[in-house]
Amino acid sequence: MTRWALLIEYDGTGTIGWQSQASGEALQDRLEAAAAKLVGNRVVSLIAGRTDAGVHATGQVGAVDLPDRFDARTVQEAINYFLRPLPLVIRLAVAVDPAWHPRFDAIGRRYRYTILNRRARPGLERHVWHVSRDLDQGAMQAAADRLIGRHDFTSFRAAACQAKSPWRTLDVLTVERDGEKIHVRAEARSFLHHQVRNLVGTLKLVGEGRWMPDRVTAALEARDRAAAGPTAPPDGLTLTGVAYPLDPFSPAGPDRSPAARSPH
Amino acid sequence: MTRWALLIEYDGTGTIGWQSQASGEALQDRLEAAAAKLVGNRVVSLIAGRTDAGVHATGQVGAVDLPDRFDARTVQEAINYFLRPLPLVIRLAVAVDPAWHPRFDAIGRRYRYTILNRRARPGLERHVWHVSRDLDQGAMQAAADRLIGRHDFTSFRAAACQAKSPWRTLDVLTVERDGEKIHVRAEARSFLHHQVRNLVGTLKLVGEGRWMPDRVTAALEARDRAAAGPTAPPDGLTLTGVAYPLDPFSPAGPDRSPAARSPH
Repeated sequence: MTRWALLIEYDGTGTIGWQSQASGEALQDRLEAAAAKLVGNRVVSLIAGRTDAGVHATGQVGAVDLPDRFDARTVQEAINYFLRPLPLVIRLAVAVDPAWHPRFDAIGRRYRYTILNRRARPGLERHVWHVSRDLDQGAMQAAADRLIGRHDFTSFRAAACQAKSPWRTLDVLTVERDGEKIHVRAEARSFLHHQVRNLVGTLKLVGEGRWMPDRVTAALEARDRAAAGPTAPPDGLTLTGVAYPLDPFSPAGPDRSPAARSPH
Repeated sequence: MTRWALLIEYDGTGTIGWQSQASGEALQDRLEAAAAKLVGNRVVSLIAGRTDAGVHATGQVGAVDLPDRFDARTVQEAINYFLRPLPLVIRLAVAVDPAWHPRFDAIGRRYRYTILNRRARPGLERHVWHVSRDLDQGAMQAAADRLIGRHDFTSFRAAACQAKSPWRTLDVLTVERDGEKIHVRAEARSFLHHQVRNLVGTLKLVGEGRWMPDRVTAALEARDRAAAGPTAPPDGLTLTGVAYPLDPFSPAGPDRSPAARSPH
């Protein structure tokens, strides 16, 4: 068997999220069904981040084990063919070491959250959170700066979060305006459940002038979910990348495809 | 009556285009029906550019005449309310001179055409033309440079084009790569029917290496639609702006609302 690392993109709108469900309608179920059509057997997939219902990805990373007879182009194009017409595609497939794991080997996750900040609801761009009241992105950045670093993020963690520890190190949290849009970018080794959406829901209160940045510090220190702001909707959230010590998708990354192992 | 200039955004995917149709399903019909619900009477709208089926807009400009009793916020929000849940919204409504015309007063149109240039079909971003073969954006720009200026654009004009003259002055035609995306931007006082899509369909042949830039010059000089490339699909095309000698939507533009005319 060959383990294939998959760079995955999807539109999460209207989906029930990544993780497999009995209904067979989860994104994981769709991917595994498409891969099963290629090989004729059941296929189990691994994933870097089990995104929630409604969350999008341009840089999700997964893996599947397939019989050795396929090359990278066939893996990518056949799975994409069987995924049609779902808005779920393999951007790249790369053969990796059989022990490589998209989740356990990951050393970083990058998310982008986009707010459409104007009176009119979204017309053309739908992967946004619509906020009508004018947001002060400078105040949002000032509050974001207080959340950078290693903290107990209990206040920004979903009740259902299964992580053993609420401690995380937030490496990047930036707030940038691009016309009517505000992009919040977040990077960490890993995130708690709903952490990015809870951070954004809190920064929005600061942007509206309803909270001063000091209150964000107090919310963090309270270690109490009720002390922070509400959870922002999934529509604006996109998993844009997963980092590895050796990126399988970069030109310098591994190529352990059958063809590379036994050139002919 | 007050004439309202409307800054309009829409997702053209699956639509039959702007211009009114007997079915009542055109974007013009939708806008007029929403305005009619506000005033209780039939409303006729004017428009800067009658975009084709499948074409999007972030900066379309229209106008409607409404009884004097409304303010700008009511015009915008009530029409947007009645347009729900269609992906068609009024970004801004500004009262203008009753003689102001969104089409005849316009002195420029700006379009953006986006190509997704990668093997995998679109997953998250759908307002693109998917081109699998690697495109050389430098060669595309070199060909685009030959089309700038005042020319007889017969070769890039739809057979159904109703314009009296095939002469147009193309002020801007740029080709820029942004990762997997290539943006073609075009600006002119006005365009012929399908002109931007025919230009893009031809530049794509150059990007693929199937045409040398010289052949684009020859196609232009042939004054024969058959000499140029095919029409690019509407999915990637967005009307991003319309220019006026005095922009009604800029802070320095006109405010001829009932409130501004008779302050109280």
